[in-house]
Amino acid sequence: MSDSPATPLLDAVASPADLRKLAPDQLRQLADELRAEMISAVSVTGGHLGAGLGVVELTTAIHYVFNTPEDRLIWDVGHQAYPHKILTGRRDRIRTLRQGGGLSGFTKRSESEYDPFGAAHSSTSISAALGFAVANKLAGRPGKGIAVIGDGAMSAGMAYEAMNNAEQAGNRLVVILNDNDMSIAPPVGGLSAYLSRIVSSRSFLGLRDLARRFARRLPRPLHDAARKTDEFARGMTMGGTLFEELGFYYVGPIDGHNLDHLIPVLENVRDAEEGPILVHVVTKKGKGYAPAEAAADKYHGVQKFDVVSGEQAKSPPGPPSYTAVFAKALMGEAARDEKVVAITAAMPSGTGLDKFQQAYPDRTFDVGIAEQHAVTFAAGMAAQGMRPFCAIYSTFLQRAYDQVVHDVAIQNLPVRFAIDRAGLVGADGATHAGSFDVTYLASLPNFVVMAASDEAELVHMVHTCACHDSGPIAVRYPRGNGTGVPLPDVPQLLEIGKGRIVRQGKKVAILSLGTRLEEALKAADQLDARGLSTTVADLRFAKPLDEALIRKLLATHEVAVTIEENSIGGLGAHVLTLASDEGLIDTGLKLRTMRLPDIFQDHEKPDRQYDEAGLNAPHIVDTVLKALRHNSSGVIEGARA
Amino acid sequence: MSDSPATPLLDAVASPADLRKLAPDQLRQLADELRAEMISAVSVTGGHLGAGLGVVELTTAIHYVFNTPEDRLIWDVGHQAYPHKILTGRRDRIRTLRQGGGLSGFTKRSESEYDPFGAAHSSTSISAALGFAVANKLAGRPGKGIAVIGDGAMSAGMAYEAMNNAEQAGNRLVVILNDNDMSIAPPVGGLSAYLSRIVSSRSFLGLRDLARRFARRLPRPLHDAARKTDEFARGMTMGGTLFEELGFYYVGPIDGHNLDHLIPVLENVRDAEEGPILVHVVTKKGKGYAPAEAAADKYHGVQKFDVVSGEQAKSPPGPPSYTAVFAKALMGEAARDEKVVAITAAMPSGTGLDKFQQAYPDRTFDVGIAEQHAVTFAAGMAAQGMRPFCAIYSTFLQRAYDQVVHDVAIQNLPVRFAIDRAGLVGADGATHAGSFDVTYLASLPNFVVMAASDEAELVHMVHTCACHDSGPIAVRYPRGNGTGVPLPDVPQLLEIGKGRIVRQGKKVAILSLGTRLEEALKAADQLDARGLSTTVADLRFAKPLDEALIRKLLATHEVAVTIEENSIGGLGAHVLTLASDEGLIDTGLKLRTMRLPDIFQDHEKPDRQYDEAGLNAPHIVDTVLKALRHNSSGVIEGARA
Repeated sequence: MSDSPATPLLDAVASPADLRKLAPDQLRQLADELRAEMISAVSVTGGHLGAGLGVVELTTAIHYVFNTPEDRLIWDVGHQAYPHKILTGRRDRIRTLRQGGGLSGFTKRSESEYDPFGAAHSSTSISAALGFAVANKLAGRPGKGIAVIGDGAMSAGMAYEAMNNAEQAGNRLVVILNDNDMSIAPPVGGLSAYLSRIVSSRSFLGLRDLARRFARRLPRPLHDAARKTDEFARGMTMGGTLFEELGFYYVGPIDGHNLDHLIPVLENVRDAEEGPILVHVVTKKGKGYAPAEAAADKYHGVQKFDVVSGEQAKSPPGPPSYTAVFAKALMGEAARDEKVVAITAAMPSGTGLDKFQQAYPDRTFDVGIAEQHAVTFAAGMAAQGMRPFCAIYSTFLQRAYDQVVHDVAIQNLPVRFAIDRAGLVGADGATHAGSFDVTYLASLPNFVVMAASDEAELVHMVHTCACHDSGPIAVRYPRGNGTGVPLPDVPQLLEIGKGRIVRQGKKVAILSLGTRLEEALKAADQLDARGLSTTVADLRFAKPLDEALIRKLLATHEVAVTIEENSIGGLGAHVLTLASDEGLIDTGLKLRTMRLPDIFQDHEKPDRQYDEAGLNAPHIVDTVLKALRHNSSGVIEGARA
Repeated sequence: MSDSPATPLLDAVASPADLRKLAPDQLRQLADELRAEMISAVSVTGGHLGAGLGVVELTTAIHYVFNTPEDRLIWDVGHQAYPHKILTGRRDRIRTLRQGGGLSGFTKRSESEYDPFGAAHSSTSISAALGFAVANKLAGRPGKGIAVIGDGAMSAGMAYEAMNNAEQAGNRLVVILNDNDMSIAPPVGGLSAYLSRIVSSRSFLGLRDLARRFARRLPRPLHDAARKTDEFARGMTMGGTLFEELGFYYVGPIDGHNLDHLIPVLENVRDAEEGPILVHVVTKKGKGYAPAEAAADKYHGVQKFDVVSGEQAKSPPGPPSYTAVFAKALMGEAARDEKVVAITAAMPSGTGLDKFQQAYPDRTFDVGIAEQHAVTFAAGMAAQGMRPFCAIYSTFLQRAYDQVVHDVAIQNLPVRFAIDRAGLVGADGATHAGSFDVTYLASLPNFVVMAASDEAELVHMVHTCACHDSGPIAVRYPRGNGTGVPLPDVPQLLEIGKGRIVRQGKKVAILSLGTRLEEALKAADQLDARGLSTTVADLRFAKPLDEALIRKLLATHEVAVTIEENSIGGLGAHVLTLASDEGLIDTGLKLRTMRLPDIFQDHEKPDRQYDEAGLNAPHIVDTVLKALRHNSSGVIEGARA
């Protein structure tokens, strides 16, 4: 910790209880130290920086004013919670953020009683806070539910559903809208424009306004009850803010970096007898660190960096990322076909569609954090003859599962799904893993489900998606860089439901779906070296299966192993079901399925995650050897005799 | 058709083109005939009545004014579209509604070019209409996307996500808010209260207001461009309606049964150069049919009925429905444990929670059509020590899949899921079938997934849910009546992951999950009669599997068959995976999985649907016999030799 900043006040704050012992005029310095400590920590670990920098004062003020952990504080998404972690007893581990075995990059129940609800996907905080508030109301307990939610997260329907239900919580619910006019990407949509109009049309609440406003709107018990009822009723009628129309008391906007304003506002909110209250706080992402403030993305997510210069560690040169290959391939399709359009839910840079957007601004649709809308919007476009690509991470597509089923699959509409971050994802951990999409998509009639085994395959699959007009089709691919294979000049149209033999052997067959192919090939070499001649197939399709190829492989090899970067119910289950349906298993089949284990895996380097999952080459070899040995043990035969 | 009403004008309208030839003063009579015809038809078929009655005039006016089918008309949910079907060439089949082989009870693309987008789940219409509108904008085509959406459907986040993105469509998007202050149940939430305030505080737009309003707000090209920009900008600033704040032009409220007002308003909307426009129309569910108007639920869904008296055909006496048994069981749990609370997403009557609510009003939460919020709200309650039951139909739980994964499963929170309408559902068809929940839940770590085989089992499983505090747990059960078994006075606590042998045999084992158990027992009798002694097990748990029981059954029977009311990837896949993991298949296992087929099945009587699915007793017998025959054919042995 020799490179750590001097933090005399912060050093004395082991928990929010210590924080509350400080005098108000010490908080400015504490916040400065907290900011410096956070910058220092993230410079070592990498991670989300800009969002945390924006809420240093807000974090300080909330813990100063509210009675955490009894008041339940929920950080929406959770990636802005690094200052919160430092203040709530996790400072000693803050330089392990996002490292294997270290602190999570998000809030997490198992880490601290100050994290009452984990997050990582956006827009869940108001619902959860409402759950805490209503549970306390039922039990007659005083604790509040406090949600801190960004303006970007407010574009998700889920946040609106929660706001629509908030009134029942009364003053036990506090929603703090952290309006930094930017989530990961610049904001989109009507709500965002509306918030900008509020902020631009009103000056920040000063202390005098505040006193007046609270006296009028949030009376204390001593005030006249009749007046209260009357004024409140009138205050709630027509013409208030959108939030008031949904049943909230609205307070704001407040300068979220001015502790002298934040503290009294939050104290009033804490003590108010009426609610729910929405506090509109305006902050700057990246605040207080010049390189972040100057950067277009406000250092949303960073590598390790030099604190003085802000210069981030460069990734070693290597093959392009799957994301970049996807974006380039889609631009090729768009150049050939003006009906190709692209849709993202607030992830233009994460999905690579920022590049697509530069080339085809009219054909790119960033709908905000709104996966449900994204999918049905795409379905509408497809029904009107367009060729929409919905580029959504595997884990976020879960947000739109019913739309995938009801609007796309049942209607058999040719929406193309580009599913990035399939499989394990490393530092983001369990909440971001793309573990289930093969299972939840391949069970749907009409769907075609592909997985790319390398970046050249991804190019072919994007082309195959573009050409597939007869129904829904999906291609999944992982986070990270490709394998370095040459990219094709001209993409191939793959035959639907046809795999390929990558390596021909005789005794062992590995049936791979996706990028475990590299490990399968390594395992095949090792098996060959042991005299076990090994075939490796890249099945390409989880649905429809290449039944002919699978039949042949099962019939002509002694052991067959499927492998995929997906949970139970995916490729392995489909191959087993085929083998069972056709009676192939009746005569003894050494068929094994390798898949993600039945646990949620914590953040760790991807390679180690796959080690933990048992999906690397040595595990394949082991699985084969164990299956071969099982033959001679006769344990099962004995049991059935 | 001898009981059909006299409909001279309607008889001359084979399509909207014919409708448009009528004079405006003929539309009142046409609407009256349309209403009479619809009542007559539904009296024969049963189905959704109240919703269609409420939009007779709106349906007439929309098709009169807009250029359907080039203008794409999308009825949200679609169950109010019977008058639309009558006017769009389907009158000859209107008395086949919801019958096998007949018209769907919802809109459906394959039925008519006038159904550009199918529906059945709520709140998809604005997203889809926006897709049509934007596709037309890109292609330079004039057609509009028109969404007709109820106030209840507006409580879903998806509708809000779409509204938040609507501005880009300009005048190609029209949203007609059909405000009948009641979806299936009385409305809940802030938005509903807001709409009521609008309606109660403003008089209906008269013709003069209308003219003025349109002149001011929606200028035609002749008007001064500068004024237009200015006024529009001002109109859009702060303090308009919630819809204006999201980027819409708001027109209303309009009396939705007054054609003299509806027609000119819609003509103005059609011709407006600006947009998107939201037209707020106020209607009465059940309008124009006295028995419906008088009923609490406005005849939302009805059996066949007598047109004169309104009296509905009584269901034959029989065992209680699973829904009713669930509700009663949950009330028993609530009586024993004050921490038990219940959550529904706008389906208090469909889930049986209306009865629970009468007994426990403070512990019942109807969140509106907001499944995402429902689940995370429940997760918050669970994290604060409550024992929440989320009662959501299988098909609607798809709406909250990410919340199930991210907020419940990853955090291992004890939310109880009561999953009604599991399996095939009869007249509601593919959109309402609960076909996928075992697959999409049993693939999640931490989850316990049960299926009730009869109503007594359901009682035990509800109790088991209530007692299970260590993580998420779900019980699924079908639409319709139980089997008539006696209900237990005292519910049993089931051991997690333990099945039961229902019938002991020697040669054949049927491993059943859910209510196919009855068919399994019938099949067992038939197999026994053929000399094939048959064991039947009720596995109870899809996850965790009763591994010991399964191992034993596989080891001690010649043929084993799994059966479930679920798609591929569920019980069968999990049993096969277990058998493969443990090498049980290596020595030849006659294991077969029976499951829902890989098609979306149309509406039909449930029994016939299960016939089509191949999941009735004869199919089980066939599967067993075929598996036994397969043994002696030696085809596979030969191939592998």
